[in-house]
Amino acid sequence: MRFRAAFRVCQSRNRAPILLQPQASRSFSHLPLNTERPSFGIAFDIDGVVLRGRVPIGGSPQALRRLYGDSGALKVPFLFLTNGGGIPESRRAIELSKLLGVHILPSQVVHGHSPFKTLLKRFENELIIATGKGEPALVMSEYGFKKVLSLAEYASYFEDIDPVSQYKMWTTKLESSNGSDPKNLIPRYNVTSDRVKAAFVVSDPVDWGRDIQVLCDILRSGGLPGHKNAQQLPLYFAADDLEYQAAFPSERLGMGTFRIALESVFNRIHCNPLEYVSFGKPNPFVFKNAEVILRQLQSSSNDNGDVGSNLFKTIYMIGDNPLVDIKGARQAGHPWFSILTRTGVFRGKDNHAEFPADLVVDTVEEAVDYILKEESTS
Amino acid sequence: MRFRAAFRVCQSRNRAPILLQPQASRSFSHLPLNTERPSFGIAFDIDGVVLRGRVPIGGSPQALRRLYGDSGALKVPFLFLTNGGGIPESRRAIELSKLLGVHILPSQVVHGHSPFKTLLKRFENELIIATGKGEPALVMSEYGFKKVLSLAEYASYFEDIDPVSQYKMWTTKLESSNGSDPKNLIPRYNVTSDRVKAAFVVSDPVDWGRDIQVLCDILRSGGLPGHKNAQQLPLYFAADDLEYQAAFPSERLGMGTFRIALESVFNRIHCNPLEYVSFGKPNPFVFKNAEVILRQLQSSSNDNGDVGSNLFKTIYMIGDNPLVDIKGARQAGHPWFSILTRTGVFRGKDNHAEFPADLVVDTVEEAVDYILKEESTS
Repeated sequence: MRFRAAFRVCQSRNRAPILLQPQASRSFSHLPLNTERPSFGIAFDIDGVVLRGRVPIGGSPQALRRLYGDSGALKVPFLFLTNGGGIPESRRAIELSKLLGVHILPSQVVHGHSPFKTLLKRFENELIIATGKGEPALVMSEYGFKKVLSLAEYASYFEDIDPVSQYKMWTTKLESSNGSDPKNLIPRYNVTSDRVKAAFVVSDPVDWGRDIQVLCDILRSGGLPGHKNAQQLPLYFAADDLEYQAAFPSERLGMGTFRIALESVFNRIHCNPLEYVSFGKPNPFVFKNAEVILRQLQSSSNDNGDVGSNLFKTIYMIGDNPLVDIKGARQAGHPWFSILTRTGVFRGKDNHAEFPADLVVDTVEEAVDYILKEESTS
Repeated sequence: MRFRAAFRVCQSRNRAPILLQPQASRSFSHLPLNTERPSFGIAFDIDGVVLRGRVPIGGSPQALRRLYGDSGALKVPFLFLTNGGGIPESRRAIELSKLLGVHILPSQVVHGHSPFKTLLKRFENELIIATGKGEPALVMSEYGFKKVLSLAEYASYFEDIDPVSQYKMWTTKLESSNGSDPKNLIPRYNVTSDRVKAAFVVSDPVDWGRDIQVLCDILRSGGLPGHKNAQQLPLYFAADDLEYQAAFPSERLGMGTFRIALESVFNRIHCNPLEYVSFGKPNPFVFKNAEVILRQLQSSSNDNGDVGSNLFKTIYMIGDNPLVDIKGARQAGHPWFSILTRTGVFRGKDNHAEFPADLVVDTVEEAVDYILKEESTS
């Protein structure tokens, strides 16, 4: 029923879209919401929906302000559900608060790598490697993993492991816990005898060539580069996006393309095909997990703090990437309702053919307009 | 006939190899060679045969000295036939001369990208992109191409084209003809309107992530990033090695794996599969071309300088990579004779199963011993 109603909205958009009348949207923010806990929540994608690079887009600051009461308290439970990451969720919350002008809690930020926490029991005291932009080793340390090395640091202990390192007038930032020059540190682990037990691609890799080389070395060798071992090490990816909307006008290659590149090389040089686990949208686990977090936000915004049994009637997923956001919401099913924006990867006039959203809008501001109107009148 | 004789040598090596008796090998250098122009020549692979990184291996300095007369004049025509490169052949000749202690002429260095010269007629005045370690744009300029940009410089003119550039505490060295800070240069070409007409992977790429992103942008857009164009631009690779022996104990990923990575990504995001041309061994063209160069060396080491019709009876290819050196010599056929060393990629006891060499030896010094003995007694 809901889908047909949304489709009718999509059709009417092409003629005389109801949602685009400015005066109507402004009035929505003042409509009284049900004073009991709201039975809906919202998950926002970030890149291409709320921000492009570090620039707010689509009226996102004003859209988000409508989710707070006049006192500044959170009225509508919402979170950011992104496949991006590379820094602790708490730090991203501070960044987002500054960029968007509203107070974001750490619990409202779900990164692609957030579910890595679920692997703590298995690898807490094992030597693991983490790679990607930002501070991947710090991310994993803050989740509780005790023996983490960034791939950059690990590689620095193997002379000549990267045959083109001399041509890089660079280093990817080596995370050093005590601020010393990493080159002078005594390796914290004996990497020639301590086997790496798993590799984590936490965020978009920066140095693909070195990362592909060193991951091949680690995965094929039972965790000791230079050795040969048919048994591949566990490998985890925070996401599998093919492309995403960053600051450049056309989409940029995502972590999924790094996975494709690594896989194609590995499969040519190893006896068995690459095995790996990818988290991130559209994985249904991610949506189930988001629902749990939204319920916690919902209960904490009520005085009694009781999560109770008041399940959401609707959770809105607002995203720009049909293959990631919309596909994921569709696969997750009830109570997820998908809204596709046109400010990112998707720029079509109508709906996406393969993964049609419940609703297509131009901007995140229109999406929030629609939601508040629906929830006020329902 | 030759193959069976060589195989017998291989078999006898396992019992009592003739070639390894030191006193016999020393005496070979004093055996009088035919005072007419020698009817044989030698092509040496470099990495894993003559050098590992910058370190001579396998007795290569003394082996090469035997190819010169007491006066220092070149007695036996030989050249280096490598899939590597990234710098002009003249510069590599100087480097090799220093490392190996013999005087190497620029004409004795054949890089993977040397055949790019054959494309001059087509692209001489067209805007082309060159990438890889070293100075790829300089290499192409010295071949006569008039409008070359390194991929690093080209990318620097497009803000945010590399979404992780901020995480690189680097720039890959931008080749600047006048020594200025490249960031302050006015782009030499209007890259938003001048279409790139071809892309050349001159040597092993350094920044795979950026190169794959920007090559996808250029190739898919008819040479103008941001546009869409189904007609793919021409793409050339200097080589297609899967793996090669560098300074690290186990083989490193070669240009062929970069090609595999780029191809796998491109084919996921573009409507047509990647099209490209790869040069380098084992391409038969490379061996034909090497034969021509050896004949020129042969004639120039004779007073009359006459290339004449004195074709080689034998050209020895000494390499360490069966898939590259031995496969190439086999495919090239007469007069090529392949010798496989054990100091690089290949470490087997016997011969390579799929691409068996005419002769397998431990080192390049043993290879030269064998050759001089064969040619003295033939």
